[in-house]
Amino acid sequence: MPEKTGPLQGLRTSFFFPALDRNNIRLQPEKEPTGAIGDMAWYCMRAIVEYSGSDAAVAECRSWAQRDEVTGGWIRGTGFIRLSDGFTATWDAGYTVGACLMDLDLMGTNGVISIDDFVLDWDGGFGSPDTTRPVGFTHRFGMANPATWVRTETPSPKRQSTQMLEAFARLARNPQGPEVAASIRRSLRTQELVDALVASLRD
Amino acid sequence: MPEKTGPLQGLRTSFFFPALDRNNIRLQPEKEPTGAIGDMAWYCMRAIVEYSGSDAAVAECRSWAQRDEVTGGWIRGTGFIRLSDGFTATWDAGYTVGACLMDLDLMGTNGVISIDDFVLDWDGGFGSPDTTRPVGFTHRFGMANPATWVRTETPSPKRQSTQMLEAFARLARNPQGPEVAASIRRSLRTQELVDALVASLRD
Repeated sequence: MPEKTGPLQGLRTSFFFPALDRNNIRLQPEKEPTGAIGDMAWYCMRAIVEYSGSDAAVAECRSWAQRDEVTGGWIRGTGFIRLSDGFTATWDAGYTVGACLMDLDLMGTNGVISIDDFVLDWDGGFGSPDTTRPVGFTHRFGMANPATWVRTETPSPKRQSTQMLEAFARLARNPQGPEVAASIRRSLRTQELVDALVASLRD
Repeated sequence: MPEKTGPLQGLRTSFFFPALDRNNIRLQPEKEPTGAIGDMAWYCMRAIVEYSGSDAAVAECRSWAQRDEVTGGWIRGTGFIRLSDGFTATWDAGYTVGACLMDLDLMGTNGVISIDDFVLDWDGGFGSPDTTRPVGFTHRFGMANPATWVRTETPSPKRQSTQMLEAFARLARNPQGPEVAASIRRSLRTQELVDALVASLRD
């Protein structure tokens, strides 16, 4: 993808899932203090880790989250983050929008890559897959319009969930190996960003 | 659209256009002090005016903008705004992304309306229109996936630019009329949001 976008300047994500059941742990702050932030915005932060290409310090983190009026749990959030190297990310996440959104735009000097299933791919991530939608991405560039945007399919021989379990097995087989070390680094960096986000909600 | 989304909680916009010519007024702060903010983010603010359904006060406005390293003009910006009634908006705008983006998501309790040409419609807004893409919107709801999202076409008998000129003519014919008053109200509200945005860049 780097040759399609050039250097990335930032990204935009939205991750929503209709899940407003007040009996669910997600909405109960005594059980899950970070609610929709720790559950959904986590993936928006993970996208930053995956695509920012650096461990640059967080220069600015501005956020807002809405609490459920009955349980007090966070059910929706929005905000932006800027890293010290200029990489930016706007995000929206939560349970309150009556739709499943998983949009990601990677914005670079030469173009934009857009994905509408950055968390669970439509083809293999859900119990009821959409087999009409192979995994892939859309490239937008110059003054291209919908007729000239380029959709590239990137099919996998295995479902996303299968690959996740196989990755866990690889990590477990070689707990001191480089893949474990890389996984730990990405997880810690993700948590660093989530922590910055939660701290900004408590300003 | 209200019945498709239910009450709107917020929106997301991106508006980019590849226009990094340093000889253009847009990049010269002595001629156009607000650069890409006054030019491009203006439309992101106008979307808030169009869809927030209120004149609620700005409760929070957090933004960042990047300056061209030669001219010092603002060439890219990002941020979020929250109104006092809880309506939120994330936005990204500028000249730096090598693509034309005009994405709008209207996020409501019952679903989301998404448009990829909220500023100039692909069908009639440009000199080289994409006649394969009638004006319309995509409705995303529940656990619908790309196979079950609903695209609704809303064709117009006249091009967008024609309608704009006709609207100007109507306003000019009846300068004391209600359409002028409504237009002024929306313009002033848009400028109020742009002013809040620019002020937040000078914190």
